[in-house]
Amino acid sequence: MANSTEPVRIGLLGCGTIGSGVFHLVRKNAAGLAEAARRPLEVARILVKDPDETRPFPADRSLMTTDAADVLSDPSIDIYIEVMGGIRPAREFVLEVLGRGKSVVTANKELIAGHGREIMETAASNNAHVRFEAAVGGGIPLIRPLEESLGGDNILKMMGIVNGTTNYILTRMSTEGSTYEEALAEAQALGYAEADPEADVEGIDAASKLAILCSIAFHAGVTAEQVYREGISHIHTEDLENARELGYAVKLLAIASRDDDGISARVHPTMIPLDHPLASISGNFNAVFVIGESVGELMFYGQGAGSLPTATAILGDVVNVARNLDRPPATRRSYWSRPGEIRPIEKVAARFYMVLKVADRPGVLAKIAGVFGDCDVSLERVLQKGKADSAEIVLITHEVLERNFRTAREGLANLEEVVEIPSVIRVESS
Amino acid sequence: MANSTEPVRIGLLGCGTIGSGVFHLVRKNAAGLAEAARRPLEVARILVKDPDETRPFPADRSLMTTDAADVLSDPSIDIYIEVMGGIRPAREFVLEVLGRGKSVVTANKELIAGHGREIMETAASNNAHVRFEAAVGGGIPLIRPLEESLGGDNILKMMGIVNGTTNYILTRMSTEGSTYEEALAEAQALGYAEADPEADVEGIDAASKLAILCSIAFHAGVTAEQVYREGISHIHTEDLENARELGYAVKLLAIASRDDDGISARVHPTMIPLDHPLASISGNFNAVFVIGESVGELMFYGQGAGSLPTATAILGDVVNVARNLDRPPATRRSYWSRPGEIRPIEKVAARFYMVLKVADRPGVLAKIAGVFGDCDVSLERVLQKGKADSAEIVLITHEVLERNFRTAREGLANLEEVVEIPSVIRVESS
Repeated sequence: MANSTEPVRIGLLGCGTIGSGVFHLVRKNAAGLAEAARRPLEVARILVKDPDETRPFPADRSLMTTDAADVLSDPSIDIYIEVMGGIRPAREFVLEVLGRGKSVVTANKELIAGHGREIMETAASNNAHVRFEAAVGGGIPLIRPLEESLGGDNILKMMGIVNGTTNYILTRMSTEGSTYEEALAEAQALGYAEADPEADVEGIDAASKLAILCSIAFHAGVTAEQVYREGISHIHTEDLENARELGYAVKLLAIASRDDDGISARVHPTMIPLDHPLASISGNFNAVFVIGESVGELMFYGQGAGSLPTATAILGDVVNVARNLDRPPATRRSYWSRPGEIRPIEKVAARFYMVLKVADRPGVLAKIAGVFGDCDVSLERVLQKGKADSAEIVLITHEVLERNFRTAREGLANLEEVVEIPSVIRVESS
Repeated sequence: MANSTEPVRIGLLGCGTIGSGVFHLVRKNAAGLAEAARRPLEVARILVKDPDETRPFPADRSLMTTDAADVLSDPSIDIYIEVMGGIRPAREFVLEVLGRGKSVVTANKELIAGHGREIMETAASNNAHVRFEAAVGGGIPLIRPLEESLGGDNILKMMGIVNGTTNYILTRMSTEGSTYEEALAEAQALGYAEADPEADVEGIDAASKLAILCSIAFHAGVTAEQVYREGISHIHTEDLENARELGYAVKLLAIASRDDDGISARVHPTMIPLDHPLASISGNFNAVFVIGESVGELMFYGQGAGSLPTATAILGDVVNVARNLDRPPATRRSYWSRPGEIRPIEKVAARFYMVLKVADRPGVLAKIAGVFGDCDVSLERVLQKGKADSAEIVLITHEVLERNFRTAREGLANLEEVVEIPSVIRVESS
C-alpha cells in the first residue's frame, strides 16, 4: 500500500487534559505520525463542554462544537478518539459511531471495564476497530503486547501498580514517614489526587484497569464489579516501617491469576519482597508484572497518567487503526462475550500480615497462637513489640484460605487480651 | 475475516535450543495459537544439521531434513522461522525465501544488525513480512512496542541491559564479591556463557542488539560495526564496591541517544544511580529503558534468552504474520536504507569514574587536578584511599567530551606520581 496524502480525519470527543494533549501532538509530530500511519492525521472536529475551559495545551477554537451531533454524524470522519471519560454520554456516543462502522480509540477505563462486551460486539458486527491502550497504564504499551506479542502464551499471573496516586501516597509514607492524611494532601496539592480521592484511594480506578487486563489476558469478559477491592486509607505509617523491617514494601497491587480453578482478581494493599521488581516502582509511576507460562517474568514500566504520555498511547492506537482502515480488524475479541468466572475472595489463598494491640500479660501469645491453630492458620513469623499499654504483636501467616483467616481474625477480636487489630495486609512473594 | 481450518504451514530453519522450543510450543499451545492466528499453525518441515543432536525439547524426526532445498523450495510453506543464527547460510536462505514472497520470522540479531538493509529491501519489494522481535531482549515485547505503540513519538534515548550473561557476571561480582574470572566460570558452568565468551563479555552481542534498536527507534539503518564497544573483562570487584559506596551500580549498558547533532550508540560498562530502574535488574534478566519526548520514561523487563521465552516472542511474530498473510505488510521500514550517521565516541560527552594508583606523597592530588584542569575536565567527587604503596585516588568527573577526557588520561598516565590507572568507567545519571 503506497502512502497517501488524503488525511485521516479524526473526531475528538473531549478536549481536557488528555484531549488537548492529543491535539497538541497531532500538530507537533505531524511528520512522524504521517510516516507511521502512511497518511497525514488531521483533527477535523472537537466536541467540548465549554470552549473557554483552561487546557494544558491550546486547541483550535474553530474546530470546537458543543453540539454532539455535529461531530458524531460527520460522514467525513474516519476515527473517533473518546477522551471524555465516564459512562454517560461516552457509552452512547461510542456505540453510535461504532454502529456506523467508524473506528474508535478510547482512554476510558470505566467504559471498557463496565461495557466492554457490548462495545466489542458492536465493533465486530460493524467491522469497526476499537483500541484502548491508554485505558490501562497511560503511556505504557501494555494492552497490545498482552494481546498480540503474548497472544500464543498462557498468562498465569499479573500484578500491577496501575494507580499512580496511591503509589505516590505510599511512597511518601514510606520514604518520608508521612501519615496517610499528609501524603494525600500533598498528592492533592500536586494535582496527582482529586479533591474527592475516593476512586483512587479505594482502588476503584485500579479495579477497572484490572478488569480490562483480565479480559485481554484470560480471554473472558471481566467487569470492574467482579474485582475484589480494598483501598489504602487504613494503612498506617507504622505498617510501612514494620514491612521494611520484615523485608517488604507495601504497594496497592491489582493482582489477577488463573489456574485450573478459575480466575482470581483483586485490588488491595500488598506487601511484596523488597527485591521484587515492583518494590522499587516509586512515586506516581505505574508498572505491570506479568508471568507467562512460556515467556516467564515480564514487567512493563512507565508513566501511568498525564497529558502527553496518555496522548502518545492514544496516537499509537490511532496510527495502527489508520494503517488498517481499509481492512476488517484483526482483533475481534469475541471472547469478551464469555463471562469470566471469578473465584470469590473467601476461596483465595494468601499470606497475611497482622498487627494486634494486646494486653501485656503472660500467656497472650499462646492464646493467639491457639486461635490461629484452631482455624488451621500457621504462622511464619511473629514479633513482639512494646510493653504494657502499647504491647503489640506483629505476625505473618503462612498461606491460608481467606475464609479461614477471617474466622481466625474474628476469634482474635473476641479475645479479652486483644485490644485492637489495627492492621491486616496481604503478603505476596512472587 | 472468518477463522479458517487450513493450517499456516511453517518451515523451521534450525532446531536447536530455540527451534525445538518453537516446535514444542506450536504443539503445546496449538489451541491458543489457532485462536490468535485465526488458523491452526503447523510445522511442515524442519531443516537441521544433525537429526540426532540433543535438544531441550524433542521434535518430530519425520519432518527433519538436512537438505536445505527440501525446505526452502517447498511451495506449500507460508512462513519461515529462521533460528540457525550466524550469517552463513542464514542470510542466503532468508533472502532466497523473501525473494519468493514468503514471510520470515527470525531471532537472528547478527543477521538483522549486519544485513538489515538488504533484508528490508528484499522483503518490501516482494511484499513479504519480516519480523524479528526475538532478536533483541528474547521474550520481552520490545521491537513491536517501539515500532508501533511509540510510532508517533520522538524517541530521545534508550539504555538497555540486553545481554544476560554479562549482567549475571556483574551481579555475582557485586553481590558475592566474586572476581570477574570466578563469576565467568560460574556463568559457564550454568550454561549462561559459552566456552568462548568473547561475543558476550566484549559487548559484541549487545552491539548487534543496539544497532537493531537504533534502526527501529531512530528510523535509520544502523549496523553493529557503527556501535562503539567496550566489554566487562577489565572490571574489578573493587570497582563494584567503590560504585556502591558512591551510590551507583555497574551494568553493561547499550546506550543510544539522538539529538540535533545526530545519533550516539555505544556499549560499555556504566555506573548508574542505585535508584535508577535499571540498577535493580539482576541475574540474567534483560531490561530496556526508553525515554520518549512525549511518553516520558518506559522500561521493558524480562527474560532476554532461553528456549521458551525466545520461542514465545517468535510465535507472537508468527501469529501477527499469519493474520496478515493475505495483506501486504503494514511496516516496510524503508528508512533502513538511509544510513544512520553515528557520532564518533570522541565527540560524545559523559561523566567518568577513574581509579588512580599513586605514590603517597604530598602534592599528588594537586598535580592530578592540574592535568584535569588543563584539559577542561572538572571533578565532581574525589576520594583518597589507602596509604603508602597502596594509595589510591577514586574520582568522578563532571560531564566532559570523551576527547578531552582521553587527553587528560594520557597526561595522568605520564605523571611520575601515577603508578597505574586500573579503572575507568563511564557514569550515567538518567
